[in-house]
Amino acid sequence: MTRQEYTTIETFMLDNMKDSAHDKHHIYRVLNAAIDIAAHESDVNTNILIAACLLHDIGRDAQAANPALCHAQVGAEMAYEFLQNLGWQTECARHVRECIASHRYRGDNAPQSIEAKILFDADKLEVSGAIGIARTLIYAGQYGSPMYIIDEGGSIRVDKQNAGEDSFLGEYNFKLKNIYGSFYTAHAKDIAAKRQKAAEDFYNSLYAEITENYENGIANMAKIEGVQYES
Amino acid sequence: MTRQEYTTIETFMLDNMKDSAHDKHHIYRVLNAAIDIAAHESDVNTNILIAACLLHDIGRDAQAANPALCHAQVGAEMAYEFLQNLGWQTECARHVRECIASHRYRGDNAPQSIEAKILFDADKLEVSGAIGIARTLIYAGQYGSPMYIIDEGGSIRVDKQNAGEDSFLGEYNFKLKNIYGSFYTAHAKDIAAKRQKAAEDFYNSLYAEITENYENGIANMAKIEGVQYES
Repeated sequence: MTRQEYTTIETFMLDNMKDSAHDKHHIYRVLNAAIDIAAHESDVNTNILIAACLLHDIGRDAQAANPALCHAQVGAEMAYEFLQNLGWQTECARHVRECIASHRYRGDNAPQSIEAKILFDADKLEVSGAIGIARTLIYAGQYGSPMYIIDEGGSIRVDKQNAGEDSFLGEYNFKLKNIYGSFYTAHAKDIAAKRQKAAEDFYNSLYAEITENYENGIANMAKIEGVQYES
Repeated sequence: MTRQEYTTIETFMLDNMKDSAHDKHHIYRVLNAAIDIAAHESDVNTNILIAACLLHDIGRDAQAANPALCHAQVGAEMAYEFLQNLGWQTECARHVRECIASHRYRGDNAPQSIEAKILFDADKLEVSGAIGIARTLIYAGQYGSPMYIIDEGGSIRVDKQNAGEDSFLGEYNFKLKNIYGSFYTAHAKDIAAKRQKAAEDFYNSLYAEITENYENGIANMAKIEGVQYES
């Protein structure tokens, strides 16, 4: 891949990225991780991998505008068309399309080629460790989700709630804490394992701070005459 | 304070709170912490303190609509008027107004009464520990700030940038890491000290993950023929 071709693909990517949990730094981190993983695997087509990394989230805006759409499917078709217009061979454009179509954690379209597996792993590393925590909280802010939900019974909920009622604590327990067993490549698994403790420690500290504050509040307010405190 | 009066003040607060970094749970955490701190101090007027906690951020919407306004000043006047209309004595409404006007970390209006100092400390605890990290990231998401900025020289910036160019790393180093010496009461200082390590560990882990990924990326991309990688 020439420098010029890299820049052309990069520019197309930048034109299609707007939100700050999936901003350009997310794309570059996925690219950096993918090239690092590729160095530990054999027979990786680097051109395919770089193009797939740069373009893997270009369908995000379409999904944001219409949540019925899957950004992986939309982005795969956008990338296929873009690369064909750029003069790429149909087979190569198809290969990038396959990588992007299968990169989504919640999808049922598992990655097949080594390049698709590496993109999947590099993208999933973004859900691991402190980076995964930070991105999930930024995402909560963007979509107006709270840090946690206290239900009508006065319990702090740590499970996944109904659609539209997500919280950070729920998302951590539903997705973030379970990511560490979902990698295809050994090197990605190693990177994630190194990051795991930072995420667990942060979650446990946050939960302890919230719980201690809440329980102290209930106990102290109960002692104040005239006030019956409810959450 | 009667249960009915508490509910009236609470309802007025809920009607004036919209953003999720300063949402109702923030208000209740400040209230919980304040009552906890008050139990370690003497001669605290609990009615004043509860009203000041519940109403301390009601000026946020006005500040969001017009950034030239200070939410502490606006909220103080709103609370004063509201409490007078509720039938509170002028002296008590004035006292709540004083607490709210001086609760802001960046303001030059230092808290004077014990109730104002407790509100200040309870609100500053919200910038400490894992809760402070989580709230700052949610806030970044709401306002479209990135996790970090890479400057034109290719360096990851950890300092405060110009207005409108904030990042989480910059905000941590400007505000979050410096909060631990800014408390008026001993009990708030103790709570913050217990939380400090969680925040520092998270920041250090996040910075290490970002840096390792970025430096590996530059080194690996340099080995790929034809691509000259730039951030």
